[in-house]
Amino acid sequence: MTQIKATNVVWHEGHVERAGREKLLGQKGCTIWLTGLPSSGKSTIGFSLEHALIQQGRMAYVLDGDNIRHGLNKNLGFSAEDRTENIRRIGEVAKLFADAGVITITSFVSPYRADRDLVRKLHDEGKPAIPFIEVFVDTPVEECEKRDPKGLYKKARAGEIKNFTGISDPYEGPLKPELVLKTADCKLEECVSTLAAFLETCGVLSA
Amino acid sequence: MTQIKATNVVWHEGHVERAGREKLLGQKGCTIWLTGLPSSGKSTIGFSLEHALIQQGRMAYVLDGDNIRHGLNKNLGFSAEDRTENIRRIGEVAKLFADAGVITITSFVSPYRADRDLVRKLHDEGKPAIPFIEVFVDTPVEECEKRDPKGLYKKARAGEIKNFTGISDPYEGPLKPELVLKTADCKLEECVSTLAAFLETCGVLSA
Repeated sequence: MTQIKATNVVWHEGHVERAGREKLLGQKGCTIWLTGLPSSGKSTIGFSLEHALIQQGRMAYVLDGDNIRHGLNKNLGFSAEDRTENIRRIGEVAKLFADAGVITITSFVSPYRADRDLVRKLHDEGKPAIPFIEVFVDTPVEECEKRDPKGLYKKARAGEIKNFTGISDPYEGPLKPELVLKTADCKLEECVSTLAAFLETCGVLSA
Repeated sequence: MTQIKATNVVWHEGHVERAGREKLLGQKGCTIWLTGLPSSGKSTIGFSLEHALIQQGRMAYVLDGDNIRHGLNKNLGFSAEDRTENIRRIGEVAKLFADAGVITITSFVSPYRADRDLVRKLHDEGKPAIPFIEVFVDTPVEECEKRDPKGLYKKARAGEIKNFTGISDPYEGPLKPELVLKTADCKLEECVSTLAAFLETCGVLSA
């Protein structure tokens, strides 16, 4: 039985705490949750921030529709129930990435306040709590519709897409977001700089 | 419209490829998939490997029952359908972590060959393909039952747990695993060293 006991000891010793990984990476794991209307600029901001952070030697990763909807959540549709489960799963995965020490950036419309609040709660329950930075990409619907790079607003207006957030489905803006970015008033570079400065201030760029 | 066009350009420039993150981390993202009977030693090996890698300055992370079953997969039970969905989701999350450049270690019984093969396929479909290292923790059921740190085999024998892998549910061993670790014949340190040496040989410890 000696070997087994020894094994158990090593197991406990082997458990790396979040702080250990953060020390290695020289940063704190966190989730930057971008929320806003379709075409509001979430992904543009998210990928630009990732790019800037990686160039500074930071470990960052973006979760967005491309790597989630076609993978983990490909068995979910757009019913109210599935939308909630979609956000819940993304929230749990973001929490895992943040627990690993990664500056995790999520880019999803996430229109419902209750769903986002649930994700915040998941992060608060981390031991210790994981920083959750809710960023409202606050672009007026008229501006989003003018941009419409994928032609989705056009289809929604034509009735080809039902339950389209901003047109036929509600968007519930955050009440107390950590940050608001107004992309109609600020250039992309300014939005990304503001976000990077916020990360600096809230202490996630050092371990 | 100038700003919008510029925004689109930055978006594409901003997309960080996996190779960029790997260069930053000095390693290749991969998934080390530990499979074996309950109490075969998967988690002990997984956490010890994570510990050893972090000490070497490597970015590693373990996905196991503790951080998955109570979070992402807490809405899944133990029916055949749910077991398959459990492994599918874990496979997708492991793929995301590996895509982020992390040496990802998963520790789940994952008894069905078809489920593990699906996860391998997901990794093969990565662009480029993501290394998937299936490690069979090959401990005889008699030895697992003797260890039984959580008393699960005892409960399974008493009929208190139904569909318990190794007792009342089948375990389908891998046909072509990348590595086999026989914990009844080797000490934990030897198992972990063998695994670390394999990672060295297959090139994931450099970018």
